[in-house]
Order: sequence, then structure tokens, then C-alpha cells
Amino acid sequence: MIRSAARLFQRQGYLGTGLVQVVEECGAPRGSIYFHFRGGKEELGLEVIDLWEHGTVHLVHRCAEKAKNDPAEMVVLLAKSLADTMQRSGYVQGCPVSTTALEMTPASETLRVACDHLFVEWQGALCGHFVQAGLSEDRAEALASITVSALEGALILSRTSLSTKPLEVVGQEMSSLVTASLPSPSSRKRRTRAA
Amino acid sequence: MIRSAARLFQRQGYLGTGLVQVVEECGAPRGSIYFHFRGGKEELGLEVIDLWEHGTVHLVHRCAEKAKNDPAEMVVLLAKSLADTMQRSGYVQGCPVSTTALEMTPASETLRVACDHLFVEWQGALCGHFVQAGLSEDRAEALASITVSALEGALILSRTSLSTKPLEVVGQEMSSLVTASLPSPSSRKRRTRAA
Repeated sequence: MIRSAARLFQRQGYLGTGLVQVVEECGAPRGSIYFHFRGGKEELGLEVIDLWEHGTVHLVHRCAEKAKNDPAEMVVLLAKSLADTMQRSGYVQGCPVSTTALEMTPASETLRVACDHLFVEWQGALCGHFVQAGLSEDRAEALASITVSALEGALILSRTSLSTKPLEVVGQEMSSLVTASLPSPSSRKRRTRAA
Repeated sequence: MIRSAARLFQRQGYLGTGLVQVVEECGAPRGSIYFHFRGGKEELGLEVIDLWEHGTVHLVHRCAEKAKNDPAEMVVLLAKSLADTMQRSGYVQGCPVSTTALEMTPASETLRVACDHLFVEWQGALCGHFVQAGLSEDRAEALASITVSALEGALILSRTSLSTKPLEVVGQEMSSLVTASLPSPSSRKRRTRAA
């Protein structure tokens, strides 16, 4: 039911998705939604954001592993993964959390806090890999922040332009920014010897 | 009426805004909306996107002028202007077009095309100033694309975090990227002499 709701939120937003539609999408009996989600739509919204948070953080770690901890390559792979998903969906499935955030802030403080939590965790995951690669905390935090902003924005531009180009550009440009922020190989070696 | 609709779309999205609410917000008589907007809500949506397009392009040119055509400073001023507006609204007024795009793509092809047009024009305005500063067409296009993506995403993160920080980071980081892409002063002089 949460997965069905996430798919619908991705495509048409939180406000545009009715509980009956969620139940129909996943083929569950009508009454079951209030059995599982006594808090109604807001509770289902929280579960969708939570599901997305886990998925996004997991994706960051998977990209870091695939990039053998090269942070510039990690960002390229992350953008590529989002671009592939977007293209496969025919440019209709974006991020369910951005739409929920835009629709429900300030109407629901509960959903705002949950959306903020997702963005903080996503940035935290990126930040950890940047620091591991030798970036200072300050540089890592700034780069994590602009990476998430740029990817979220590119997911919007990708849908309106029916193209993966905006996401690819974010991958390339962020990769340059990360590379420019990395300590030189010699200072990295010194750091490793000191550790 | 269009300005009232824009304010409501910014705060609660296209789907969350009813025509009656728009009429109440601007104090017009109830029947007047169908008199002015025979196409109903979609037509009003198009007018809001058009209003936003003019405002955004105008803002880019104003920032370029204020930055005395320094493209790195222009990007900082642009991010600062959006941050100021966001803060003044108490973090409730974002971009009405991103919400409309996320809610109505793919439901309305008409609105998708209009949202895409806005993003293209916004990028075009930035791109023009980048080229004028000596960047190649390719670099200018890529930088315009990631600037718009990053600002749109930061407008979301700013609302959920109740902070202007995401927009300020975009200003600083994009400014570095633009500066790194500028031709060196000596090659710029050669270009000017050749022209």
C-alpha cells in the first residue's frame, strides 16, 4: 500500500492522490487503509516519505560503493541512476517528497518535518562519503547541500523537458565541483600516513 | 486575479487552490473568473506561469545589471533575491511553477509545455549573460541548466528547513563554478581586441 501510494505521489502529488485510488492501485480491500493507517492520509504520507528516505540513503551508499569511494564518480552515478528511473517511467515518476513538501508546507507541520528529515539524511549520507574522501566538514556539507538541491531541481526540469539532460548536467557539473574541492594527492597521502 | 492565483499556487500548489478561493483572495465577484478565464483553471494556470516567466527573466537581467555584468556575482545576487523573498514570506511562498509542474505532468500537456517554456527562457536569460562574459556556448548552457536546477531544488529545501541556507549555498557554489569556467583575463583581452 505504501509503495502504491509512493508511485501515485510521484506521478500526481500528495493532494492529487485519493486514499480510494491508493487502495485500488494495490488491489487491497477498501476498508483496509483505515485499518492500517488510522491517521489517514497524513500517516500514509509519512510512510511514503520514510520509504523514500531509506531508498535514497541506500542509493547513495550503493553509488559510493560502485564508484569505489571516488566521490566525484559517486555523484555522476547518483545522477545517472535518477535519470534512468525517470526515463524508464516515461518522465512521469519524479520525487514524491518534493511534491509533498511543496504542497503541504506550511499546511502540515508533521509532513514538513518529515520532508526536512529526508533531505537532512540524504545530505548526511553524501557528506559522510565526501569527508571520507578527504574533504573538510564545511566543504562536504556545502557540496552535499547543493548536490541534493540540484538533483531535486533537475528532477523537475527533466519532467517538463521530457529529457534526462538536466540530470546529466548536474552529474557532470557537481563532479567538477567535487574534484576541485578534493585535497591534492600529496596532501591526501600525508593525511593517510598521519592517521 | 492572476497575482492572487500565483500567491496561492506558491503556498499550496495548483491542485490545492480552488477557483473560488482565488476570487475570494482578490475580492472580485464570483462570476468574474469565468468571464475572464473561459478556459477555467488551466487557463488561469497558464497566466500564472506566464507572469512568473516574465518576473524571473526580468530578475535575471536586474541581477546582471546590479552585478555590473560579472556573471559570478549575478548568480550570487539571484540566489540572494530568492532567499530574501522566501524569508520575507515566512518560508511559505516558493516557486508556483515547480509545484504546478510536479502536480500536472503528465496530466496536462498544456501546462507541461508552459512550465518547460519558463525553464527554457530562464536558462536562456542566464546563458546570454554567461556568453557575454566570455563563456563558450556549451559551458554557458550547462551552467545555466545547473543554476536553474539548483535554485529550484534549493527553494524546496529552504521551505522544509525553514532556512535560507540552501539558497545561499547555491549562490556561493555556482559562483565558484562560473568563475572557474571564465576565460583567463589575458584571453578575454585577446577576444575583445579581435572583436
